[in-house]
Amino acid sequence: MPGIRAQALAGLPEVRPGDDLAGLIASAADGDAGTLRDGTVVAIAHKVVSKSEAALVALADVSPGARALELAADTGKDPRHVQVILDESVELVRAERGVLICRTRHGFVCANAGVDTSNVPDSDTLVVLPRDPDASARSLRARLRELTGLQLGVLITDSFGRAWRHGQLDVALGLAGVAPLDDWRGREDSQGLVLVATWLAVADAAAAAADLAREKDSREPVVLVEGLERYVSEDDGPGAAALLRAREEDLFL
Amino acid sequence: MPGIRAQALAGLPEVRPGDDLAGLIASAADGDAGTLRDGTVVAIAHKVVSKSEAALVALADVSPGARALELAADTGKDPRHVQVILDESVELVRAERGVLICRTRHGFVCANAGVDTSNVPDSDTLVVLPRDPDASARSLRARLRELTGLQLGVLITDSFGRAWRHGQLDVALGLAGVAPLDDWRGREDSQGLVLVATWLAVADAAAAAADLAREKDSREPVVLVEGLERYVSEDDGPGAAALLRAREEDLFL
Repeated sequence: MPGIRAQALAGLPEVRPGDDLAGLIASAADGDAGTLRDGTVVAIAHKVVSKSEAALVALADVSPGARALELAADTGKDPRHVQVILDESVELVRAERGVLICRTRHGFVCANAGVDTSNVPDSDTLVVLPRDPDASARSLRARLRELTGLQLGVLITDSFGRAWRHGQLDVALGLAGVAPLDDWRGREDSQGLVLVATWLAVADAAAAAADLAREKDSREPVVLVEGLERYVSEDDGPGAAALLRAREEDLFL
Repeated sequence: MPGIRAQALAGLPEVRPGDDLAGLIASAADGDAGTLRDGTVVAIAHKVVSKSEAALVALADVSPGARALELAADTGKDPRHVQVILDESVELVRAERGVLICRTRHGFVCANAGVDTSNVPDSDTLVVLPRDPDASARSLRARLRELTGLQLGVLITDSFGRAWRHGQLDVALGLAGVAPLDDWRGREDSQGLVLVATWLAVADAAAAAADLAREKDSREPVVLVEGLERYVSEDDGPGAAALLRAREEDLFL
């Protein structure tokens, strides 16, 4: 086993709306000799994907409705910010202690529907999640293939809190060419002795590993993960949407 | 940034009750030249810790009570197996479709209270979680220090399902000398511009990364993780117990 390796990509410039993000990644990787190869998984913090796609909302353009005004009073947030969160959500799971836990229109359950102000130079602009993160991943992958000739995996990530445990982990929001899950349930172990019960969330584990490779304050949105070649496929695969559990099937709630 | 690296440790023998697990790890690592150094985090699948500590229950010794018989009928499990799960639990969170989601006496919420049959040669014996995984981690760390002279981190892991998302991720059950969490909430980013909202679950991310470095069927319970030196401390730290969120504080449920 060669193991896995995750390394932040240096030299990526500030990403702006309309930028060719795959092109910026390919150029930055080219400076670091040999950093991309067939089977490399390119993990990208969603924020730069959102910025390149102009998934941004100017607070000045937002008129908060009654529900947003009410929640803003309860949570101490800007009512326009709350309105953007509501616009991104199909369900408000919980509103308490200044935190809104939402189910986004993609089906992700996370704080503030993934709407974010951090690392945005202009604090009057909010960054929302990419419209269709799996489609973003597929398009970045195709463009990277065009530019590099390599079969890469693309993984778009965000930091989510979780039930039962403190802290956040990066998880997969969008995915292309990487298996979201590795299902060992019902298989036998290496000695043919006993059944293995594991159903590994590969893409989420890769996202968590990638996040460890960057300093939080150092603006390194892209991390290259090696050693996952066995999970990288010719076709784009089912995407990160395959990781979402339907509420009625959820035994952990 | 040097990034992170995770590599499974080869050459560990089958672990048996009473074995000096730290000794087995130090010997196996010695064969692989230079695999351990100051700051290496030694991630250990809990099952070998449980085995070395004889945290095992023989089904023949178990008399199922009324509740176990009832749940066994509902879930199709061996009533003695269910009794062991109940003995390990302080709360049954959910019993449905053959799965028991439990809160263990340690406070972990997981399927079947972590009671496991897989990779046990004698299928009439169940493996339960270590009695006190943080204490196990501290003791393994002290023994590894004695044997190697190195300041290592020790991370004991298990694969847990989670709410909202499919699949399992390895998480930290026990921890010594590694920060469980890295709190960036309220700090400013590298340019002093905006607040960072991240509260990274370092030990769980390291557990997830370690799990990617082993093949599920290849009996590689120990993975060495490099690149986390900044989270490894002289003192043992608060342990993995610091990752547990009190139910009444949990907004994700």
